[in-house]
Amino acid sequence: MVAEARKTVVLLLSGGLDSATVLAMTRAANCDVHALSVAYGQRHRAELSAARRVAQSLGAVSHRLLQINLDAIGGSALTDSSIAVPEAQSSSATADSIPVTYVPARNTLFLSLALGLAEVVGARDLYIGVNAVDYSGYPDCRPAFIEAFERLANLATRAGVEGAEFKVHAPLIGMSKAEIIRAGSKLGVDYAMTVSCYQAGDDGRACGRCDACHLRRQGFAASGLIDPTRYA
Amino acid sequence: MVAEARKTVVLLLSGGLDSATVLAMTRAANCDVHALSVAYGQRHRAELSAARRVAQSLGAVSHRLLQINLDAIGGSALTDSSIAVPEAQSSSATADSIPVTYVPARNTLFLSLALGLAEVVGARDLYIGVNAVDYSGYPDCRPAFIEAFERLANLATRAGVEGAEFKVHAPLIGMSKAEIIRAGSKLGVDYAMTVSCYQAGDDGRACGRCDACHLRRQGFAASGLIDPTRYA
Repeated sequence: MVAEARKTVVLLLSGGLDSATVLAMTRAANCDVHALSVAYGQRHRAELSAARRVAQSLGAVSHRLLQINLDAIGGSALTDSSIAVPEAQSSSATADSIPVTYVPARNTLFLSLALGLAEVVGARDLYIGVNAVDYSGYPDCRPAFIEAFERLANLATRAGVEGAEFKVHAPLIGMSKAEIIRAGSKLGVDYAMTVSCYQAGDDGRACGRCDACHLRRQGFAASGLIDPTRYA
Repeated sequence: MVAEARKTVVLLLSGGLDSATVLAMTRAANCDVHALSVAYGQRHRAELSAARRVAQSLGAVSHRLLQINLDAIGGSALTDSSIAVPEAQSSSATADSIPVTYVPARNTLFLSLALGLAEVVGARDLYIGVNAVDYSGYPDCRPAFIEAFERLANLATRAGVEGAEFKVHAPLIGMSKAEIIRAGSKLGVDYAMTVSCYQAGDDGRACGRCDACHLRRQGFAASGLIDPTRYA
């Protein structure tokens, strides 16, 4: 999925396990990676410090932090302090229903920011770390969504009008958490730097109880690798 | 184009002439309008004060201001102080080429924010004030872009997955500036409240020289109505 030729790409980097793995994949493919993180009023701001460390450690050529007050919109346990983050099982991202941690239109927003940056830095390839575990719960992690965004990108932009072809790459989309962890470990990702927990403390320590912690812990167990996550 | 039945809608409100007209149209159709403005690092922040006045005067049920530092991305004369805003004619929005005032992926970003808000307030109809004059210059003002976003919206959201049908309405898309001004004037829009100028002062006074001023002035002249714009 990752391009072989040296190219300039834009990557959405959350500071979590998945996007860190995608960064390692694009770097292994010799890409010049412009990383983009978004402070959107999420509870787990510790992931943004993690994103900075990951971008530096894995050699992104730039790392931008965009700030947007999505809490003015609300509607998600991740941005609205009046909605509790559920513990795993009570509302799992792997269940049929969409969890309360869903942030309305978040990936549409993130990809539109990545698209704007791609136009400015001259990239035609956008990378996003969505995966199969997520897309069973979140609508904007499904392959059909990724394809629809790609189509939009080519209509929405100066570059598209001028004949460029944007590609949205989601190299993890068919992978399990364990497969992702194994792939990243082979590429030298230090997952101790990453933060997945929805309510991580400012020190980056994980709660060990939310869906994100649950999926991460299961992934390490299934991968047969040591889980370096620091729990509170 | 504007719905007849009472419904809840989300409207992107810039504070300019076009979106104020769309607000008047939706209010005339008895819609409950949630207005959304975006502070994205634009030079012409005066349009945001104008948006607040317009939302209040025309009876939006809510008005939210989202803030995002798009100047961290740059690439436009509107957000990058190192790129000059051109005077009209030197780089007109009506010419074939895309003007330097184009903000990369701006309408994709704005519509994604409107979509997130629509999910939260239970709206299925998004309104945006793009028009024919704009779309000859800006790629993300064309009908094909609007249609592609609508398709994306139904794949991107919890509501879409649950069977809702989002509609993106661009009721001005086929109208000239003069037609827009006549339509809004009939609905009682006080255009003195609106700010179109790309480099308006904090007092809302227009430069009279940029593309936006040029198009607005021409529009009033062609409409046969008095131009209430306050020039510097």
